[in-house]
Amino acid sequence: MTDTPSIRRRAYFISDRTGITVESMGEALLNQFNAAEFKQRTYPFIDTPDKAHELLAHIAEEVAEDGSLWGRPLIFSSIVNNEVRKIIHTCPAYHIDFYDSFIGNLEKELHADARRITGATHGLTDTARYDARMEAVNFSLGHDDGITDKDLARADIILVGVSRAGKTPTCLYLALQYGIRAANYPLTPDDLESLDLPRMLKPYKNKLFGLTIDSNRLQKIRQERRPDSHYASLKNCVKEVATAEEMFLRHNIPFLITTDKSVEELAACILTKCKLKRRF
Amino acid sequence: MTDTPSIRRRAYFISDRTGITVESMGEALLNQFNAAEFKQRTYPFIDTPDKAHELLAHIAEEVAEDGSLWGRPLIFSSIVNNEVRKIIHTCPAYHIDFYDSFIGNLEKELHADARRITGATHGLTDTARYDARMEAVNFSLGHDDGITDKDLARADIILVGVSRAGKTPTCLYLALQYGIRAANYPLTPDDLESLDLPRMLKPYKNKLFGLTIDSNRLQKIRQERRPDSHYASLKNCVKEVATAEEMFLRHNIPFLITTDKSVEELAACILTKCKLKRRF
Repeated sequence: MTDTPSIRRRAYFISDRTGITVESMGEALLNQFNAAEFKQRTYPFIDTPDKAHELLAHIAEEVAEDGSLWGRPLIFSSIVNNEVRKIIHTCPAYHIDFYDSFIGNLEKELHADARRITGATHGLTDTARYDARMEAVNFSLGHDDGITDKDLARADIILVGVSRAGKTPTCLYLALQYGIRAANYPLTPDDLESLDLPRMLKPYKNKLFGLTIDSNRLQKIRQERRPDSHYASLKNCVKEVATAEEMFLRHNIPFLITTDKSVEELAACILTKCKLKRRF
Repeated sequence: MTDTPSIRRRAYFISDRTGITVESMGEALLNQFNAAEFKQRTYPFIDTPDKAHELLAHIAEEVAEDGSLWGRPLIFSSIVNNEVRKIIHTCPAYHIDFYDSFIGNLEKELHADARRITGATHGLTDTARYDARMEAVNFSLGHDDGITDKDLARADIILVGVSRAGKTPTCLYLALQYGIRAANYPLTPDDLESLDLPRMLKPYKNKLFGLTIDSNRLQKIRQERRPDSHYASLKNCVKEVATAEEMFLRHNIPFLITTDKSVEELAACILTKCKLKRRF
């Protein structure tokens, strides 16, 4: 973003559900523009005419306050209910409606009428599916320490790496988003004394996936956690990372560098590389 | 889904990034059709012509195998790179392209050219933002037991409820998706002896948010965990839930019923109701 963005717009992400998808899709489009400043707000659960009217009044107020600074507002929406959508569309804004833009043509393609009922995305439609997901979360939480190998046999995948390489959030995301039972094994200094696989992991070699990280970044993360410790020293970080990577290479353990990757990218990448089956 | 769906289609979600958003948007559209069966597959990181060609060959193979059963395939995609997108569009399928459908008009509206560079959605563009999120995950993991009130002052929100009401996954989702520091306080049988607020929570009354659940559903969840225990008995579940809800009402603690809600819905709902500020 430059000092004086040439584009300044308010962007409203409006959904009759959680808004998570609309926001993400809208942001992906906005991210395509350089030298722009977007003031973004998300409004979920706009599923009645009353809420729609209330929101429009709120938007009108914001625009009246400083409209000259921000230009015509952008509205990214996904609203299934016709009545609610029509109200939102009366707002003097530039509209992108992810539902309305496609549902008509999709009806033609499928020779069927859409239900036009506020949908099941991110909703709890299938209890069994949902239970599988929660079970995966509990599984991942219960295998976040490497202390027990009880149930490692039940893991879909075991993430291995030095402390603070990104294993825990990646495990949790794999569980929450994909229902994958992801266990987590932190390589301790003891483990790193030898290049042999930790004893506990040997029976599960085909489930291992390594995570590694740039030593400088690791040093910064550890410094936050235990300032000025041996644990956080750059020298120690360099040594641990090098040894862990050598271990991965020696035992043919696939691995990823987490430094420049988000948990979403790491999780999607691991899912693809390991051809893991989602549990829902 | 009926026994003999009148619509049977393969649906491919194709993205040059994680595919999470494309999949979610595509599923929202498909969920609008009853009596339909969709065989869904997601292909992330299709960001080079080679990968695109390889994917098309794979799709052609699948369609050749049992195409007569499944009709014309549906492709939902979001591909920024023109070359890659053009290749995908040569596939004999019904296409919905979330990027291409909007970017041209958005360029006109903003009087600017899109970067046409594979984007930053779910990517690690801003380290500070990302650190805030990981810090929130670590915070939520470190406050998942109600044993310590150290740092509760730093929590953005404290979820309160009986064991297995859905607090832990909701906390984790709040942290992962929104960077919210969500702590978690399970109401123990001791806490439920009195309708008074647990001592540890009293200083943080304005941060409390209750989660409750249908007793029958709770009984099923607990039964899985500790079969035939007092903990899992319907009688005990009914009593704990009733007492917890009474506590919420008495102390004006806002609360949600988790029974029919996904973690995404719970998190988005709590964010809105509590007017919580995201940390990124």
